Amino acid sequence: MSLMPIPASMQVKTGQLVVDPSFSVGINGHADVRLQRAVELFLDSLRRQTGMTPLDLKLTDAAQAKLVVHAEHASKAVQELGEDESYSLEVSPAGAKLDAATPLGIMRGLQTFLQLVHTTSEGFAAPAIAIQDKPRFPWRGLMIDVGRHFMPLDVLKRNLDGMAAVKLNVFHWHLSENQGFRVESKKFPKLQQMGSDGLYYTQDEVRELIAYARDRGIRVVPEFDMPGHTTAWFVGYPELASGPGPYQIERKWGIFDPAMDPTQERTYKFLDAFVGEMAQLFPDQYFHIGGDEVNGKQWDANPNIQAFMRSHGLKSNQDLQAYFNTRVQTIVSKHGKTMVGWDEILRPDLPKDIVVQSWRGQDSLAAATKQGYRGLLSFGYYLDLNWRASQHYAVDPISGEAANLSPEENQRILGGEACMWSEYVSPENIDSRIWPRTAAIAERLWSPQQTTDVNSMYQRLAQISRWLDWLGPTHNSSYAPMLRRIAGSNDISDLRTFVDVVEPVKDYNREELAVVEATSLSPLNRVIDAARPESATARHFADLVNALIAGRADTDTKQEARALLTLWRDNQTRLKPLETESFLLKEIVPLSQDLSQVAATGLQALDYMNRGGRAPEAWATQQFALLEEAQKPKAQLLLTVAPSVQKLVEASSGKKAPPPK
Amino acid sequence: MSLMPIPASMQVKTGQLVVDPSFSVGINGHADVRLQRAVELFLDSLRRQTGMTPLDLKLTDAAQAKLVVHAEHASKAVQELGEDESYSLEVSPAGAKLDAATPLGIMRGLQTFLQLVHTTSEGFAAPAIAIQDKPRFPWRGLMIDVGRHFMPLDVLKRNLDGMAAVKLNVFHWHLSENQGFRVESKKFPKLQQMGSDGLYYTQDEVRELIAYARDRGIRVVPEFDMPGHTTAWFVGYPELASGPGPYQIERKWGIFDPAMDPTQERTYKFLDAFVGEMAQLFPDQYFHIGGDEVNGKQWDANPNIQAFMRSHGLKSNQDLQAYFNTRVQTIVSKHGKTMVGWDEILRPDLPKDIVVQSWRGQDSLAAATKQGYRGLLSFGYYLDLNWRASQHYAVDPISGEAANLSPEENQRILGGEACMWSEYVSPENIDSRIWPRTAAIAERLWSPQQTTDVNSMYQRLAQISRWLDWLGPTHNSSYAPMLRRIAGSNDISDLRTFVDVVEPVKDYNREELAVVEATSLSPLNRVIDAARPESATARHFADLVNALIAGRADTDTKQEARALLTLWRDNQTRLKPLETESFLLKEIVPLSQDLSQVAATGLQALDYMNRGGRAPEAWATQQFALLEEAQKPKAQLLLTVAPSVQKLVEASSGKKAPPPK
Repeated sequence: MSLMPIPASMQVKTGQLVVDPSFSVGINGHADVRLQRAVELFLDSLRRQTGMTPLDLKLTDAAQAKLVVHAEHASKAVQELGEDESYSLEVSPAGAKLDAATPLGIMRGLQTFLQLVHTTSEGFAAPAIAIQDKPRFPWRGLMIDVGRHFMPLDVLKRNLDGMAAVKLNVFHWHLSENQGFRVESKKFPKLQQMGSDGLYYTQDEVRELIAYARDRGIRVVPEFDMPGHTTAWFVGYPELASGPGPYQIERKWGIFDPAMDPTQERTYKFLDAFVGEMAQLFPDQYFHIGGDEVNGKQWDANPNIQAFMRSHGLKSNQDLQAYFNTRVQTIVSKHGKTMVGWDEILRPDLPKDIVVQSWRGQDSLAAATKQGYRGLLSFGYYLDLNWRASQHYAVDPISGEAANLSPEENQRILGGEACMWSEYVSPENIDSRIWPRTAAIAERLWSPQQTTDVNSMYQRLAQISRWLDWLGPTHNSSYAPMLRRIAGSNDISDLRTFVDVVEPVKDYNREELAVVEATSLSPLNRVIDAARPESATARHFADLVNALIAGRADTDTKQEARALLTLWRDNQTRLKPLETESFLLKEIVPLSQDLSQVAATGLQALDYMNRGGRAPEAWATQQFALLEEAQKPKAQLLLTVAPSVQKLVEASSGKKAPPPK
Repeated sequence: MSLMPIPASMQVKTGQLVVDPSFSVGINGHADVRLQRAVELFLDSLRRQTGMTPLDLKLTDAAQAKLVVHAEHASKAVQELGEDESYSLEVSPAGAKLDAATPLGIMRGLQTFLQLVHTTSEGFAAPAIAIQDKPRFPWRGLMIDVGRHFMPLDVLKRNLDGMAAVKLNVFHWHLSENQGFRVESKKFPKLQQMGSDGLYYTQDEVRELIAYARDRGIRVVPEFDMPGHTTAWFVGYPELASGPGPYQIERKWGIFDPAMDPTQERTYKFLDAFVGEMAQLFPDQYFHIGGDEVNGKQWDANPNIQAFMRSHGLKSNQDLQAYFNTRVQTIVSKHGKTMVGWDEILRPDLPKDIVVQSWRGQDSLAAATKQGYRGLLSFGYYLDLNWRASQHYAVDPISGEAANLSPEENQRILGGEACMWSEYVSPENIDSRIWPRTAAIAERLWSPQQTTDVNSMYQRLAQISRWLDWLGPTHNSSYAPMLRRIAGSNDISDLRTFVDVVEPVKDYNREELAVVEATSLSPLNRVIDAARPESATARHFADLVNALIAGRADTDTKQEARALLTLWRDNQTRLKPLETESFLLKEIVPLSQDLSQVAATGLQALDYMNRGGRAPEAWATQQFALLEEAQKPKAQLLLTVAPSVQKLVEASSGKKAPPPK
């Protein structure tokens, strides 16, 4: 049984409820179309998970049903922030009962039930258990940037299925960027016609996705980033910009100069009409206006803007942006919506109902909260930085300065969002950046604050990752095909041995270390694009090494560590023939050689440890130099087993490695 | 380079054409929407195969293009049997040229180009080559039975993508069965409302699929099987039947009694209206009326029908069915269509334009041809019988009696169809029954008759199987998740070792050997449902054994054979813990024990052979008994490595195994 997120409370009981083809669900209490759809979706998932047919597992009368679902009343027509998502689930050998105030709570409980069902000696079954569950935070989101790389609707749908599975409830749809404007506007059709390369969602598709999300208990919050990040708007509407056009869709990554002209009334007239149209299309109460990363260069260079600033007493570009935000907030509010924006929008003159999304950190979040604003944390949840799950897991919205807030201020911290910025993800590999790590973030936002056992998290994450395969995300299934393409061969065992132990460089080092500048036209077919953000093999090896060093390794552990090191030592020889056949493999030759050398070092260290004596200092010094070299990124990849081998050298020699130069 | 089907002729040249993000396609000569769509689909596939983005690989002016496509004239508005599909493709380091009479030929050539592109040291590239290609037969089909198990539209689409990739051109859609009626009829809505369990295609979905097929150069021929196989029709319209109702959707498999009443005018009135409606919905010229497997019991039991037969001089049920067919043919013809039916429809009183699809064999096909009818072969191409690819590959439509036909009679053999009857396939595993074996059948129907090298076929089939992964079919990707479900664990290495060397029993032995009768409600989640129809591992092991016995095995071969046998011998011990945890594993315990024993026998035989002497006769006798037992199906599975081990025992002992009792 691997539940993720962990429920608020549960009591495991004796026995289990068998789920065979005659298993059925009944609804008593409140019933509506959305609840019925939720049950149908649940049965679909259960059929997929168990391999049963559409003729098995029925919705029946509650009196005959094995699982009885009871909601007290309807959810809101448009899902609201803070709606009751709590539920209680009781499973006994005779049947199960799921109770909730609303269909939304039922949805959450049904996902828990799916996670309980597993293969047993008696059949598929859920263990007897009593669960009382509710979320810690009301806003638990995933942002996907479809501006930099467009993601077709089916990619979003399968990720919404993943979100629902781990009880996330906000899809933040980052819809416009310098590199693309992705929604059909009927009022301003040049936005998509000239700003999207033909890669945009029609309004019908937007409605389809919103309905899909709603069926899964997920709100959809659109973001139209302004006044910066707007080059794609200006291709069709250069009159909105602060500098002379013409503009072209941006192909590079980074922060760019173009920004809307906050001094022209025509800008607000346009935004009033545009926001009005989009406020109709997107039913959610919240409307994200971005507001991040304006470098101000176009404003500095425009004498009219400078004159405007002087005449209006605006002393800085920050003041000018605050003026813009105030105007935009009025428009958003006029169309019935509540404004959300990134840290930069925070200025005390904005009304208190806005929400600030913090990429800067908990202190920034706390500052907003103290001023009476509500806030979301995204710092620490940036999936594109290729952090390990444990790093994300350690980030709590209520920590740092935010740990010292009053209960009332605490209430204003609504939750957080994982963010998938898309410079380096395609429809093929985006799932592998989102999953499974987002499940750890989802647990942080749903489960009680004291849920912090990293080993438990990783054990469950491994289970949930495979379980998510049934629901659509392709984070696991895309790996081997990508390796086959790189190898130019169907035999990828040696390549996999290598890629299993490397990780993409972290943070923004991919840009820093680029040999050729990447653009939106760069194929994402390299080893770095296939390699997972976190190497499970390296984590496992680190566990073995820690056991070895602590003197608590049994024979199996010792043998396994030795077998892995031997596999890695000999891998370069086996991989070599492929390297001359595939252009995509050439760049990894140095790192593959490093792996072989590092593994050889590890084996030597084990030999020294076995003999009981100490490894010679000269040998250790030499290995430390080699390990330092091996820990430098190559082909924008990190050799993740090197630090563990370094520990072995330290343990075998009694010397500490010198700090890296 | 792995082309499948092999072109009619080709000349490999020197050098290669690099396919980088700037690669482009231009159209000169005839241009229309269908051709442009074909190029867009080609570019999409190429992007997927290479990992390039939607901004790479453009449709440009022919003058700048790397691949220039030239069609002489349009294809027919509705794709016709026998339309020109020939093309010529020239690839040089500087560029490529694809010429065809029609967009249909261009589609075939584009698929060939995709198969040429592979990963090289210089980048993705197609080798320089000149190809002149055309199909041997004009009708190359795949039939999918969506009556017994419904297949959602996306399952059909991904299989149409697979079909297009291997140049099949007819999707035969078997739409009605005792177990389900699968198309929305607006004239007779009770057909789908009462006969489908809600699992049917709307007319919009039918049109969507036909358009999808047309974009890929595939005709869609609907089949409505009659007068038998019609129980699902009678649930809503019992008055069509020959026996009193009421009727229920059939849940079992087999041949059933219900049949339409051929003696009632209301039957033909219904069929006239129904065929009229469907003739509008399905634009293809051909309309399949099934006509197979009428057991006649309802006719025998109905005194009115008996009286009718006497008064009309119909001496047998065959005569009655012929009468029915003649009436139906008139209706089909009235609505502008040409009738197709299974062997049973063949009676000399039908007009010569009908097409007979033979499940009985080439002799039956030849008989039809001699009578002036056109025919299709499906005997030998039944995918549900779990034959190996080589068996299908050996079946030629023009062989047996059909080898002695006149050229004119030969012309009437239009081709053939692979048939996927769906008693034992679900959306999850149907692709693994269709692919890759259907590619071998596709080659039989497209390539010159003398293309018969089985080793070459298997080598290319392995490549094409993985290449098909880019296009959608899930025959490879569905395997591991099914094994994980069976194991109830993410660690499936030992289970995979076992399932890799078993095959489902062949022909109709699954029914024969069933412990519990299977129905349409039976989950298809057992080992037999995950196991592939053909074990690649067993084929490889057989090659190793043949080399060993022939004395042409090198050290690597010997080592590999020994390593495999050792793996298998020790597998049962490793698999054992799982067997107590999963109900789906219990049934394979005896066969898993067999595998271990058989492998131990193989290792002993190798030892005897190594020593140079002869294995003792008593030992051999004992092993033959063990091997005979191990070759008996268990859990409806065959242990595919046992025959090779038997060869080793024979070689080591100099004794022949006794014929199985």
